[in-house]
Amino acid sequence: MDLATLLGLVGAVGVMIGAIVLGGNVVVFIDVPSIVIVIGGTTFVVLFRTTFAQFLGSFKVAMGAFLHKSVAPTDLIEEAVALANVARREGLLALEGKQISHPFLQTGIGLCIDGHPPEVVQKVLSKDINLTIQRQEAGYGVFKATAEVAPAMGMIGTLIGLVQMLSNMSDPKSIGPAMAVALLTTLYGAVIANAVATPIAEKLKLRSGEEKLSKTLILESISGIQEGLNPRVLEQLLMTYLPESQRQSSGKD
Amino acid sequence: MDLATLLGLVGAVGVMIGAIVLGGNVVVFIDVPSIVIVIGGTTFVVLFRTTFAQFLGSFKVAMGAFLHKSVAPTDLIEEAVALANVARREGLLALEGKQISHPFLQTGIGLCIDGHPPEVVQKVLSKDINLTIQRQEAGYGVFKATAEVAPAMGMIGTLIGLVQMLSNMSDPKSIGPAMAVALLTTLYGAVIANAVATPIAEKLKLRSGEEKLSKTLILESISGIQEGLNPRVLEQLLMTYLPESQRQSSGKD
Amino acid sequence: MDLATLLGLVGAVGVMIGAIVLGGNVVVFIDVPSIVIVIGGTTFVVLFRTTFAQFLGSFKVAMGAFLHKSVAPTDLIEEAVALANVARREGLLALEGKQISHPFLQTGIGLCIDGHPPEVVQKVLSKDINLTIQRQEAGYGVFKATAEVAPAMGMIGTLIGLVQMLSNMSDPKSIGPAMAVALLTTLYGAVIANAVATPIAEKLKLRSGEEKLSKTLILESISGIQEGLNPRVLEQLLMTYLPESQRQSSGKD
Amino acid sequence: MDLATLLGLVGAVGVMIGAIVLGGNVVVFIDVPSIVIVIGGTTFVVLFRTTFAQFLGSFKVAMGAFLHKSVAPTDLIEEAVALANVARREGLLALEGKQISHPFLQTGIGLCIDGHPPEVVQKVLSKDINLTIQRQEAGYGVFKATAEVAPAMGMIGTLIGLVQMLSNMSDPKSIGPAMAVALLTTLYGAVIANAVATPIAEKLKLRSGEEKLSKTLILESISGIQEGLNPRVLEQLLMTYLPESQRQSSGKD
Amino acid sequence: MDLATLLGLVGAVGVMIGAIVLGGNVVVFIDVPSIVIVIGGTTFVVLFRTTFAQFLGSFKVAMGAFLHKSVAPTDLIEEAVALANVARREGLLALEGKQISHPFLQTGIGLCIDGHPPEVVQKVLSKDINLTIQRQEAGYGVFKATAEVAPAMGMIGTLIGLVQMLSNMSDPKSIGPAMAVALLTTLYGAVIANAVATPIAEKLKLRSGEEKLSKTLILESISGIQEGLNPRVLEQLLMTYLPESQRQSSGKD
Repeated sequence: MDLATLLGLVGAVGVMIGAIVLGGNVVVFIDVPSIVIVIGGTTFVVLFRTTFAQFLGSFKVAMGAFLHKSVAPTDLIEEAVALANVARREGLLALEGKQISHPFLQTGIGLCIDGHPPEVVQKVLSKDINLTIQRQEAGYGVFKATAEVAPAMGMIGTLIGLVQMLSNMSDPKSIGPAMAVALLTTLYGAVIANAVATPIAEKLKLRSGEEKLSKTLILESISGIQEGLNPRVLEQLLMTYLPESQRQSSGKD
Repeated sequence: MDLATLLGLVGAVGVMIGAIVLGGNVVVFIDVPSIVIVIGGTTFVVLFRTTFAQFLGSFKVAMGAFLHKSVAPTDLIEEAVALANVARREGLLALEGKQISHPFLQTGIGLCIDGHPPEVVQKVLSKDINLTIQRQEAGYGVFKATAEVAPAMGMIGTLIGLVQMLSNMSDPKSIGPAMAVALLTTLYGAVIANAVATPIAEKLKLRSGEEKLSKTLILESISGIQEGLNPRVLEQLLMTYLPESQRQSSGKD
Repeated sequence: MDLATLLGLVGAVGVMIGAIVLGGNVVVFIDVPSIVIVIGGTTFVVLFRTTFAQFLGSFKVAMGAFLHKSVAPTDLIEEAVALANVARREGLLALEGKQISHPFLQTGIGLCIDGHPPEVVQKVLSKDINLTIQRQEAGYGVFKATAEVAPAMGMIGTLIGLVQMLSNMSDPKSIGPAMAVALLTTLYGAVIANAVATPIAEKLKLRSGEEKLSKTLILESISGIQEGLNPRVLEQLLMTYLPESQRQSSGKD
Repeated sequence: MDLATLLGLVGAVGVMIGAIVLGGNVVVFIDVPSIVIVIGGTTFVVLFRTTFAQFLGSFKVAMGAFLHKSVAPTDLIEEAVALANVARREGLLALEGKQISHPFLQTGIGLCIDGHPPEVVQKVLSKDINLTIQRQEAGYGVFKATAEVAPAMGMIGTLIGLVQMLSNMSDPKSIGPAMAVALLTTLYGAVIANAVATPIAEKLKLRSGEEKLSKTLILESISGIQEGLNPRVLEQLLMTYLPESQRQSSGKD
Repeated sequence: MDLATLLGLVGAVGVMIGAIVLGGNVVVFIDVPSIVIVIGGTTFVVLFRTTFAQFLGSFKVAMGAFLHKSVAPTDLIEEAVALANVARREGLLALEGKQISHPFLQTGIGLCIDGHPPEVVQKVLSKDINLTIQRQEAGYGVFKATAEVAPAMGMIGTLIGLVQMLSNMSDPKSIGPAMAVALLTTLYGAVIANAVATPIAEKLKLRSGEEKLSKTLILESISGIQEGLNPRVLEQLLMTYLPESQRQSSGKD
């Protein structure tokens, strides 16, 4: 559970609702046609830009921003060094049947046990990393597209409202409220883009970067294990994945 | 048929027309000189920026956003692994006359059968991929240009309208409607850019990316087949092109 | 003669003049001080940003957007394959004295005949391509700079006009016309940037890209000819420079 | 202590407060709900986009912009050349126990003394550099995010204020002050982004670049020392890290 | 002396002053608090973003945009070819004591004479080029920062002015002049950014690019001289640094 995402979303929306409620007149902020033009228009244009699969998959992808669980690099390093120790003492085949926590590490060790040469293992694993990142980019691309489209639809809605208001100014008293309604779509578009879509896209991008880092660490471990690198050297190499402050804690191997 | 494109376009335009109709006065949204300045101006400026060939070809290119049919990577993988099995058992020449579904795979296999060395085959095929992508970029470049030019022409139209209105404010009653008309070009420009041209460009870019991925998968297959890679290893390599969730389904080979 | 450039420019300007003439009062769109501030200011700032040589050369460079003649890749391929056939049958020296249409192809063949080793020929030619592209970028950079500066000068002119108008509002009747004049510089800046400078820069960039592609094709041909590549293989390699639809037409060699 | 950062922040805020105080009415610039919506909203959205660790760590990271102490490259070069001299005369092991000022240089010398081959030392150190830079980017990423989000929250606050004002214009006298309040959030957002968050991010980026340069210099030194490069050649190589004007001063070795 | 820079600056400022003088009321364009907030605020924020050394050095760096003297590539080529001829006939050591015009060429020849192997010479020189470019980027970075900060401070000043005006609209006659003053900071910011800071940054970037090109030409010459390349081949290689039109003029060697 990613509490920062949840707290951030709830807090941001809460602050905005608070500002509206404090102003007294909540009802003026709700206008069904404006909601339809911004949310409906954005939905259709995003669908136009993407595919059904991406579009429908985006809800599941968005959940990832709320439910993501990071892997601690220290655990990965510890596990990799332990495996390297076993492999060095008893050979690569001794790794068969070992309980391995991270699926990507397991895949890599599996490829080693199957006896593929190092170049093939490296190629399969690094291809897997790159293509996974590419798929994740397509995933959060839907939210980036939303962040681009929503303000545009908001502006289009405001322009429609302004044209309607300006072409019929017989009643001066209605001008203010009509402009208020016209501005609502711009407000909706700005809120959707800045407080929902962009943060989700940014969080997913950050998680994708973390995953890439973990998998690169694993790739490096597999490479070291297969080449029979000294486990202490491997640990020193993997330690660079940790910030200075966390490096002391392990290293007692 | 790409239903997402069609539904997205129809839905987005529908939502905007709905908002206009609900406002009552539809006629104020139609102004022939404004349409001429935005659509005509955008057309001429885009023609200025591109070539006749690109410009005239853009309608056909745009159709690709509506009619595109994706190739399922699972089918490609299955076919490539089958071919690799044949080549390994009976030699490369046994692939001659085989029914091959994807034209790029066929070209590649043809080059292998003709006896060209692997480097030449790789060079021809990867050159083909890169230059095809480049041509497709030129293709959707027309729509990117339109998305840039249309809002600019809309703004120019609005400025012309504002100057006309401001220089002649003798009748206060005409100010509102004159501003409404002046704003129409900005509205047209925003709609053309955000609800038509950008989505087409983005959809074409996405399809171009998909095609590049398919062709890279094929390039990798050809390379594996020609080098006599173990079909099981080749499958494992190609599996990285699929998301985790789809990998189990094939693999029974 | 690049008709798309000419027609695009004439058409875009025509549409804008039409919109102004239709509005009736043409005279309000012409204000000499506004023209001086936008055109003069833009000219001086662009000169500030570039060199005299680039600045004065830009008119000649701009002509290239109107007068450019593309080289058909099919002709280049045909010529290169013919030369490869001769070189393969009779040796590289047989190419001496051959009538060669494209100057870059001639330079390359000349280097081969002079007996330079392939690496030197490749180095000279690819350096030439890169440095030519760089010089062309500097060439259209003047128009890119103009497209950035003109709207800024337009905004500065409008701000000057607004400050003058706002600091002297004793006569309410003069407010409208004064604002109209203030907006003129923004209009001029937008027209110069979007309907003149950017399209010229984009067209020149496109032509530069085409030239790079032609020269890369030639570089590849020279390399193939010098290495004695089979002319049929060379043709297959060069064919990737053509879109799928044009590939059948030649290939009868 | 980075005085430029401190003086810059104090001066910029001082100038703005001065402008407000000179205007007389300071109280109108303080509006608690506006402060809550901009600062609160920005905080929550930034939290949404990042992780708790990054978010909480950002205060410590920001301190780095105020407290950073640069390492003089001349000192590093002098130290590296001295070490190279020792290593050349007495062997790598003679470096053991030497007092070394920069921790990264110490790590590198340590790896050499431990007897790791040059490729391993290079790999560990360059990985360390790249991953450190990546971690620092994540660090100042929080301030870049703030610089993006604050103006957006400012605009959202202004839109909320405008809608409230426009929907209730019964008292013409309240319109001015209501608009003043509505504009405050835009002002707050602009100040936070341009006078606080962006400068911190830029300063941290600059420091990160300096650190990368120092560490690359060290990496190069270690490589030269381990390969037994002539100390005079090493010095000439390292001198390129200094601007022309500083190169003479050392070089008396 | 770079006349384009001087003429551009004087002309651009002249055009703007002309437009202000023509409008009659010059005094309204001078407002000391507005000048303080834009120039003072920009200065402090730029200082915040950079270091004292960069900030104080920027005046000297800016002078480079006015006083720069370009090196003619034709002269460099001629000199390099002459040196290559000497080296080929009499050996590298014959270059000792030769009068060499360009300091970078001298450094390179010096390294050759000292007997360093080609890889070391190449490494030292290309490192020098890259690090020099990086230092120059830091140099004109101050002006790029100014171009970003000045409009932001202008907008902040205008917002402060608007809030002051809107919160006190008791005297309708003061509204116009108050808005005029509020707009002044935006005008100042736009002028500083577009007519001073950006052109200086662009000019320095252009000069830095020119220097990089000259030094790359020299690097290539040194490499050719040290490897004993045929001077005619070297000339042909270096000729690619000239535009087509200038190539004929030399070549009589």
